[in-house]
Amino acid sequence: MSQIHAPQGFRFSVASAGLRKGGRNDLALVVSDAPALAAGVFTTNLFAAAPVTVAKEYLSGGSGAARAVLINTGQANACTGEAGLADCRESTALVAKETGLRDREILPASTGVIGARMNMDYWRDAVPGLCKNLGSAGLEDFAAAIMTTDAFPKFASSELQLRGGKVRLAGVAKGAGMICPNMATMLSTVLCDADLEEGGAVWQAMFVKAVNNSFNRVTVDGDTSTNDTVFGLANGASGVKVGADEQPLLQDALTALLSDLAYMLVKDGEGATKVIKIKVSGAEDNAAAEKVARTVGHSQLVKTAMYGRDANWGRIVAAAGRSGVRFNPDELRLLFCGVELFKNSRPTELDFDTLLKVPLQNRDLLIEIFLGSGSGSYELLASDLTHKYIDINADYRS
Amino acid sequence: MSQIHAPQGFRFSVASAGLRKGGRNDLALVVSDAPALAAGVFTTNLFAAAPVTVAKEYLSGGSGAARAVLINTGQANACTGEAGLADCRESTALVAKETGLRDREILPASTGVIGARMNMDYWRDAVPGLCKNLGSAGLEDFAAAIMTTDAFPKFASSELQLRGGKVRLAGVAKGAGMICPNMATMLSTVLCDADLEEGGAVWQAMFVKAVNNSFNRVTVDGDTSTNDTVFGLANGASGVKVGADEQPLLQDALTALLSDLAYMLVKDGEGATKVIKIKVSGAEDNAAAEKVARTVGHSQLVKTAMYGRDANWGRIVAAAGRSGVRFNPDELRLLFCGVELFKNSRPTELDFDTLLKVPLQNRDLLIEIFLGSGSGSYELLASDLTHKYIDINADYRS
Repeated sequence: MSQIHAPQGFRFSVASAGLRKGGRNDLALVVSDAPALAAGVFTTNLFAAAPVTVAKEYLSGGSGAARAVLINTGQANACTGEAGLADCRESTALVAKETGLRDREILPASTGVIGARMNMDYWRDAVPGLCKNLGSAGLEDFAAAIMTTDAFPKFASSELQLRGGKVRLAGVAKGAGMICPNMATMLSTVLCDADLEEGGAVWQAMFVKAVNNSFNRVTVDGDTSTNDTVFGLANGASGVKVGADEQPLLQDALTALLSDLAYMLVKDGEGATKVIKIKVSGAEDNAAAEKVARTVGHSQLVKTAMYGRDANWGRIVAAAGRSGVRFNPDELRLLFCGVELFKNSRPTELDFDTLLKVPLQNRDLLIEIFLGSGSGSYELLASDLTHKYIDINADYRS
Repeated sequence: MSQIHAPQGFRFSVASAGLRKGGRNDLALVVSDAPALAAGVFTTNLFAAAPVTVAKEYLSGGSGAARAVLINTGQANACTGEAGLADCRESTALVAKETGLRDREILPASTGVIGARMNMDYWRDAVPGLCKNLGSAGLEDFAAAIMTTDAFPKFASSELQLRGGKVRLAGVAKGAGMICPNMATMLSTVLCDADLEEGGAVWQAMFVKAVNNSFNRVTVDGDTSTNDTVFGLANGASGVKVGADEQPLLQDALTALLSDLAYMLVKDGEGATKVIKIKVSGAEDNAAAEKVARTVGHSQLVKTAMYGRDANWGRIVAAAGRSGVRFNPDELRLLFCGVELFKNSRPTELDFDTLLKVPLQNRDLLIEIFLGSGSGSYELLASDLTHKYIDINADYRS
């Protein structure tokens, strides 16, 4: 792991409240010294968890600014009704009381068991210490505290030289680990010390664009959690102003950062041994390319073949053919790790087994599909489907 | 297995041509003594196999009548280009020559390895014997000869008392077994000795309706093969005429027969230990209900939970919530094996573990989802996702 480029003006704290078993840290707080432009992107699941509802409310009502992100593990606070909403609001109120911030400046997120209430006594006991210790932890600790069954903490950072000086971006994420009886939840928080002259609406738009090109382009098992949340805070603490002209540079850096985190999510997907990049091009439009990529990336047969180190062109081609996207099958070309396996409706005559023996051992695999119908394209990262995935997800109560 | 009700006027034969290894039967032929109304329903995959293309051509050009169904295992004859089409046509010509039938009266279907050519010498050697032995085999032999990695032969039959006398329906199917490098292929052939006065277009329409309510309502892994084919022959050999008034009775019997076969496909799905019936009702329309049912039935997390004997309501509810169907989450009710697990956006207070301990041991599981949005409904049968599925599909070349 390279050096962390820590954005200025943010302080971290973590604590073990007892919400999860085993005494592991289960609360994570980051506070910006100054009000920050705040962006939020949330799950599209109709059963959005209480913290999703509350965070949206906090973000929508106010100035587009926030000061803090507060994350707990242990309980997802999803499917908990009005009581869960009240619990969530109390959690931000507890932090507000200790820090002097306003409730709605504190953006909440949760991950853990669905349907279970949080023990608010644990919160009441732990929050004073959590807030007192602000500044005692770093980005890495924050990343570790929000882990559930993640195998490693996920964080990334970068520094960007702009006309007015350097600005820094840093992000954490947690991914595809199972908490029973639950599905994987994706949470991420990104911090930035640039001073965006264009304001919060632009930051939100930049964020949506970056999320669409990173987190929304990965899949482990195709399930969208009730709690998926990505927050972004830009606090201006670097003193470096970013105007409209330099905004594309910041956009690129933001997208790159989230892409790094998204890659880590797939690498650490439940039971995953492979990161499969699926590039579809030559589709009628981008939406058609996306549909083909997702059909291939969600195909159990493709995912198990990748696990089995089998360049199974038949499964890939058949998945494209059943995607619902119209194309001329005679035009489809398939490359696997750079080797052309299929064109003109037939396998090529190359010696696949020899050519692909080494590439198939690698973690990173590349599937390229050319449809010959137009200029639409899409890229998706997918994990493979393994025995360990079944272990993790089937062996909860049995 | 109960008694077979064999439709009159059909003769069967099976043979081992060498298309598959191990000397197993790999050719299956059924011939009707008289021209039969012929129906065909085929894969929607853009990479339709050569026999699909040829069978469609034979059915579309002619009188809507056929005399025979000819099935091989070993090679799927998919992704084989023009050469594969010629091979397929030669296979029906070989049978035509020996039987005196016309080529286009013989409907072909194949299952096996994608991308490999069939060895036509094997065909040429085996077809004379295959045709000479017509009448030496029965429905059960036919069902066994079309198996690939199916664990058991799949056949069903029924007898229907109509005004003019009894008519019989019998069907065979093969299902979700893997042939590398390939995906599961579903093939089925249904024979009937009723004399349909309304003709071939009505038989085809009855067939499409029956397939939509049976085979199209099952899922093992969500993948649609290049070779999926269902044929239906109605030869009138019973001498019992079926007019418009009695047609609904025959329709019901046909749908019931195909549903029995469809159930067997799921029961024998790759690695499957469970048959999960997913009933969705109260949707805005049937299409919305289907979308929810398929999202639940394809969810890896739901399928692994069922394998793990875990009544994981959180995964089921979350799958419904991400299906893309709009409904009021407060209205969703979930029953599992008759026990109400979830309503009013919260789990019920029942003691699930005790109530579901016994039902979760059974092969057949029932998930009922009520959406409270309208009168649309749908039923889907799904298999679970197991270690053995991964064994079967990942361990081909590794």
